[in-house]
Amino acid sequence: MDLDLARTLSRPAESKIVLLVLDGLGGLPHSDTGLTELQSATSPNLDRLAAESALGLTQPVSVSITPGSGPGHLALFGYDPLRYQVGRGMLEAVGIDFDVRPSDIAARGNFCTIAADGTISDRRAGRISTERSGVLVERLRGIDIGAEIELFVEPVREHRFVLVLRGEGLGESLSATDPQRTGVPPLRSRASDVAGEPTSGAVNRFTEAAAERLADAAPANGVLLRGFAKTPELPQLADVWSLQAAGCSIYPMYRGLAKLAGMTAIPAGETLSEQIASVHEHWDGYDFFFVHYKYTDSAGEDGDFPGKVARIEEVDAQIPALMDLNPDVLIVTGDHSTPAVMAAHSWHPVPFLLRSQTVRRHAQATFDEECCARGSLGVFPAQEVLPLAMAHAGRLAKYGA
Amino acid sequence: MDLDLARTLSRPAESKIVLLVLDGLGGLPHSDTGLTELQSATSPNLDRLAAESALGLTQPVSVSITPGSGPGHLALFGYDPLRYQVGRGMLEAVGIDFDVRPSDIAARGNFCTIAADGTISDRRAGRISTERSGVLVERLRGIDIGAEIELFVEPVREHRFVLVLRGEGLGESLSATDPQRTGVPPLRSRASDVAGEPTSGAVNRFTEAAAERLADAAPANGVLLRGFAKTPELPQLADVWSLQAAGCSIYPMYRGLAKLAGMTAIPAGETLSEQIASVHEHWDGYDFFFVHYKYTDSAGEDGDFPGKVARIEEVDAQIPALMDLNPDVLIVTGDHSTPAVMAAHSWHPVPFLLRSQTVRRHAQATFDEECCARGSLGVFPAQEVLPLAMAHAGRLAKYGA
Repeated sequence: MDLDLARTLSRPAESKIVLLVLDGLGGLPHSDTGLTELQSATSPNLDRLAAESALGLTQPVSVSITPGSGPGHLALFGYDPLRYQVGRGMLEAVGIDFDVRPSDIAARGNFCTIAADGTISDRRAGRISTERSGVLVERLRGIDIGAEIELFVEPVREHRFVLVLRGEGLGESLSATDPQRTGVPPLRSRASDVAGEPTSGAVNRFTEAAAERLADAAPANGVLLRGFAKTPELPQLADVWSLQAAGCSIYPMYRGLAKLAGMTAIPAGETLSEQIASVHEHWDGYDFFFVHYKYTDSAGEDGDFPGKVARIEEVDAQIPALMDLNPDVLIVTGDHSTPAVMAAHSWHPVPFLLRSQTVRRHAQATFDEECCARGSLGVFPAQEVLPLAMAHAGRLAKYGA
Repeated sequence: MDLDLARTLSRPAESKIVLLVLDGLGGLPHSDTGLTELQSATSPNLDRLAAESALGLTQPVSVSITPGSGPGHLALFGYDPLRYQVGRGMLEAVGIDFDVRPSDIAARGNFCTIAADGTISDRRAGRISTERSGVLVERLRGIDIGAEIELFVEPVREHRFVLVLRGEGLGESLSATDPQRTGVPPLRSRASDVAGEPTSGAVNRFTEAAAERLADAAPANGVLLRGFAKTPELPQLADVWSLQAAGCSIYPMYRGLAKLAGMTAIPAGETLSEQIASVHEHWDGYDFFFVHYKYTDSAGEDGDFPGKVARIEEVDAQIPALMDLNPDVLIVTGDHSTPAVMAAHSWHPVPFLLRSQTVRRHAQATFDEECCARGSLGVFPAQEVLPLAMAHAGRLAKYGA
């Protein structure tokens, strides 16, 4: 829905909406069984829910586009993912609660291992511990990159950190120094236009100075940067939809996305069970709860079919705790498909269920790709998920006389 | 379909199209039976038709939007309902055959009851008779509202009337005087900009003078106005689709919508049986017949589940008379859903059947939400209904070489 129209139709109500996103949920059939991950899982709670729900398949971006996590989630939050884009670096920065300012440039950083010949031998520096990473980040903070640019370096998890540049007129269109493969040296960052050259120069000075300061820190003796980005100007959920929204995500990136949309990050703990407990605890404070579960995607990315099945079953076991909240609208879906047989994100539409008092349901349904394809909602844009939740929550006025 | 493309592809033919709109047709399951209104109805003729038809669900505006009657019908007539909008007042004016001019402003009026303390005690003045309303309208016609604005007041049905203002440079964006609730006084109309203030001033003078002239006419001792609107500039069906179209509606608003699209209003009588007889009578004069049946929506709005079921059965009994016409394309659908369990219009997509010689059908199908959800047409925009009828009628040329 157009967001200006959304502003005119949205109205407050007492109803509660829960959006449970199982990252990378959609799958493909295993060659041995012909069954997808969802069809292979023993998931009685999700199946019971499906029989009480409207089913469909969401299209995150378009028929053929494989979305990253950013577009996949922005669509679920009601944004046109082709219009609103969030760079990786900015996602990471917001996700660790870094206080980003509108003109800041953020980048995703990796500690990496540089071999004696100057090429990259490990893009993740042997996945050094979060603790070790914190120590090394300290070394990088004092680097002077000149050009009147202030520098912030913040640890994330393991080998990951965030670099933030603050100054006037910084260029955003900077190429990555991370070549995304080993056996080659790090790249020099380049600006897409002359105005950005002082910024790319500063980035390259940072990379060089970092290598000097990390010379004795192998396997973390270098840094790689990618995803240079400014803050996108996302219309806020409270303004567009009159929703007080909470985001509950263990992983920083998804917490960051939720915050960019205007959600308040509530504690997530370390497990889905703790996330749901947190939603219980904060139930009275918000209208809308986004709960993010990462591990279906992780298993899919690893090509681990049984692992993804097990993760679905793990979620299934938590569904009763979620149902105890008795939300007016409960949605279970994914931000995109990550079929284990592809070991990657894919373009396939994503299983979707919406439970409320006002659905067209099919009592024989189970929660899988096939039933969802035959569901009453058909295949529809993921961008319509939030408006649909609003409609079922009694929060959208009639359009036209 | 884009209307410019429609102009280039449309071609005349001898074929006949009938579009039967059962207002508010779509429903939701009854909590006792799990069956929708269509599933609960005994409707052998519609079911037989469904087995010979292509089935689908139409989306009137978008996934989550609950349409008013205006957008619901404009979509069925091939217009983008977000681009073309018709205000309530203009609908009413055209529907009573008032000869609207392009610069006129029309408003929907209600006679109402004003209590001794100046607040509204009944927004419909006890639904006074059409006859009584006609007498009171006479009293309002002579009111002088100044500002060189000519005034027309026309009775509609029962407590309803239409107010039309005619003059140069009238403001269209006027707020309603009808607060849409009782226990509060009527509102003063306000213009959204300075240019509209003479118009809102005239409206407020009308309201005051009307109260004086109706002082002894309780329960109809006041007036409420809403839906101020000009004529929308709708491309005409004859021009876009090369169709000579007839509209057959008992209710003025739907007759008005059809006329705005360029249809000729043919007599409708008082029942669906009489409407179908009228279509028989005018069969040779037109290519396209829009037949509007109101009472499925009325029962739905009243929350009367068995009533809506009975209305569907009433329509079903008339299907053979419609089939006697042997139209090349017969469509049965609704302009939106009005589930009796919600007692209101809703956003749910609408059951749709199209019978022609060139459909993909499913012999086991019946006419209901579930079969339509699984139909060969899927869920598709209502705006594509008219183009689809044109295609099945052999009236659309091939696109591209």
